[in-house]
Amino acid sequence: MAAPGAPAGRFISFEGIDGSGKSTQARRLVAALREAGHEVTHTREPGGAPGAEVIRELVLTGAQDRWSPETEILLFTAARRDHLERTIRPALAEGKLVICDRFADSTRVYQGLTRGDLTAKVDALHELMIGMEPDMTILLDADPATSLARGIQRGGELRFEGFGLEMQERARAGFLSLAAAAPERFRVIDAGRSEDEVAGDILDAAQAVL
Amino acid sequence: MAAPGAPAGRFISFEGIDGSGKSTQARRLVAALREAGHEVTHTREPGGAPGAEVIRELVLTGAQDRWSPETEILLFTAARRDHLERTIRPALAEGKLVICDRFADSTRVYQGLTRGDLTAKVDALHELMIGMEPDMTILLDADPATSLARGIQRGGELRFEGFGLEMQERARAGFLSLAAAAPERFRVIDAGRSEDEVAGDILDAAQAVL
Repeated sequence: MAAPGAPAGRFISFEGIDGSGKSTQARRLVAALREAGHEVTHTREPGGAPGAEVIRELVLTGAQDRWSPETEILLFTAARRDHLERTIRPALAEGKLVICDRFADSTRVYQGLTRGDLTAKVDALHELMIGMEPDMTILLDADPATSLARGIQRGGELRFEGFGLEMQERARAGFLSLAAAAPERFRVIDAGRSEDEVAGDILDAAQAVL
Repeated sequence: MAAPGAPAGRFISFEGIDGSGKSTQARRLVAALREAGHEVTHTREPGGAPGAEVIRELVLTGAQDRWSPETEILLFTAARRDHLERTIRPALAEGKLVICDRFADSTRVYQGLTRGDLTAKVDALHELMIGMEPDMTILLDADPATSLARGIQRGGELRFEGFGLEMQERARAGFLSLAAAAPERFRVIDAGRSEDEVAGDILDAAQAVL
């Protein structure tokens, strides 16, 4: 991420299907890294900056057909661009660690792989308007049925949780295929264990970019 | 616009700097065409469909630096995609005439030409996510200073009117350069005459696509 001579911030994203424990584990990693003396910016998508949070409201509320998949990827990309400019890049420029709950891989999976063949458009849009990846992506790999139950129990924050078990299964397969295609960036963590075990593995993995 | 065998709708956009008389002249053309028995959908950008109108609020309100130019072109393109899918394409498919106050050329000029060198990004985004042009674009060519005064007097609907005379001059030059590059699509109309004279020329020009 760092330009020559600039402080070397690091950017770690968390990905995984709904209910896989991303938010809990991101919070735990943030706490452990701050405990160890790191300056950490903890953020999440969609949202993470004032403008991006307004766009978040548009994409996560309303009827499932409120937006076409194409309009949706434009809105997610607009929110991501704002988040990158106003939150992520400034933090990295100050040498901070940025921990983000979901980033571009979620758009690749939810809009690209699981809703028609929009993969090429999602990739082209990312290349054109975002043009960067996290230094490391922690993929929490979880059982689709168990995760779906957890997501529903939690109160279903997201419109997308309405899509059910088939969506969870397709999304899991989508994340795993992204991880297989970019093994240098992804760390796939088995999320079907105790919270402490998972947190320990994530902290170990994060050392590689610190 | 029409697929083989489909009813042949026609799509006419109005472009020009703020205060050049686009809205007035679009209304007059719509009235004249309806009088002549045509089925006409009258719409405008940004907006023109329920979702696109919500995005309109985001791009036209707030501080001038609320969005970066890059985020802004993503939001305009999201609104345009929604407008195209929900309003313009359905009307064209029914064989209607669509008259639209501003379309992609406004993004090319206001975000592409006048605010840094974003032309290539605006064009690539249009190609990727919109991929069509009006059958005819009426460019109302008006004096920048006179138009600015009219726009301000009207109450300044748009955030962009705050940008002043220099912006009006650059925008006028931008529209004229687009027209010069696509003479088969553009009709440049001298807007510095009486409203009736201008309306007469526009109605004559529109015959070419009816």
